[in-house]
Amino acid sequence: MFSQNHPLNRLIDEIKKIPGIGAKSAQRIALYLISLPEEESNRLADAIRDAKKKIFFCSICNSLTHVDPCRYCTEEEFSNEFLCIVEEPFNIASIEKTGAYRGKYHVLLGALSPLRGIGPDELKIDKLIERVRENHFREIIVATNPTVEGEATAHYLAKVLKDFGIRLTRLAMGLPVGSDIDYADQVTIKKSLEGRTEIRE
Amino acid sequence: MFSQNHPLNRLIDEIKKIPGIGAKSAQRIALYLISLPEEESNRLADAIRDAKKKIFFCSICNSLTHVDPCRYCTEEEFSNEFLCIVEEPFNIASIEKTGAYRGKYHVLLGALSPLRGIGPDELKIDKLIERVRENHFREIIVATNPTVEGEATAHYLAKVLKDFGIRLTRLAMGLPVGSDIDYADQVTIKKSLEGRTEIRE
Repeated sequence: MFSQNHPLNRLIDEIKKIPGIGAKSAQRIALYLISLPEEESNRLADAIRDAKKKIFFCSICNSLTHVDPCRYCTEEEFSNEFLCIVEEPFNIASIEKTGAYRGKYHVLLGALSPLRGIGPDELKIDKLIERVRENHFREIIVATNPTVEGEATAHYLAKVLKDFGIRLTRLAMGLPVGSDIDYADQVTIKKSLEGRTEIRE
Repeated sequence: MFSQNHPLNRLIDEIKKIPGIGAKSAQRIALYLISLPEEESNRLADAIRDAKKKIFFCSICNSLTHVDPCRYCTEEEFSNEFLCIVEEPFNIASIEKTGAYRGKYHVLLGALSPLRGIGPDELKIDKLIERVRENHFREIIVATNPTVEGEATAHYLAKVLKDFGIRLTRLAMGLPVGSDIDYADQVTIKKSLEGRTEIRE
């Protein structure tokens, strides 16, 4: 329809680079952006430039921040005694929302996945070990996802961190609150049996 | 994690506005954009601005173009005798690639969909009727998608165009070339039976 260097094809090519967006979705998104009033499509363009300029990864914990080191690493309300290891920066927000944890964080920026070529060197594990060595954490909570990759990562971390003699824990796996046992998969039910807890009066 | 006006949340909000992209995908895309070298994320921002500035909808046929009217509407190689009606601008490229059609186009910019609140007034049908009145098309090919919405649109168009006495046709539905009958759905097989053609020697 248009030449390869045409603004429309350039836009589609740039959108296609986003992981998980294929050729057809890229076309659809490009069409949507062109249908918008100029003011609105520029708002997205500006937001991309602006976020890229002002947001970066914390040099200590790899969370997304606009000051370095980030507030989790510097503010005292986040206890120095606990370290919570997560896969992605947004996982921090999910944990913060619960209000049940007030310690430091470490973002791996991924999980081990041999199939996708992600080994320990692709994750921020060296930096993690350095932090564990230099700090006096009482407990390290591995909060990687309850997936094959997250579990593999948790086991790998257990191996490399065991010599520090710090208490290492993993988020509990089991039935989601408000769900129905009949709809849970076998592995989840098995985990909920293995991790069963005493009923207190 | 950040305040609502924070550049990161502004970026996520803008991405979430794209139809078909939910909160989780928007987070993932924002994270990807922030991980990119600044040069590359700016390339996307510039492509959005540039495409929006240089690309618009043809005032006659609603295709995407950088000159108005577009080349399909003005160049003689696209015959004045045929009009092909499609749902979306990119459908034109799919038809052009076949090399089997060389006529004018009309883009409806959608299809009838009562469930999504899209009626005839939301589509470029008034403009279509005006074009049909002012031109001398010999045949109008309705190339809307073979979906419930596309079929409903085709039937609606047949109703509003029948008084012009022009030959109205619809793209054939049937088995895709290279496929296997055993994998085709019942409706497709039914259509392929209804639309069966004589075998020529």
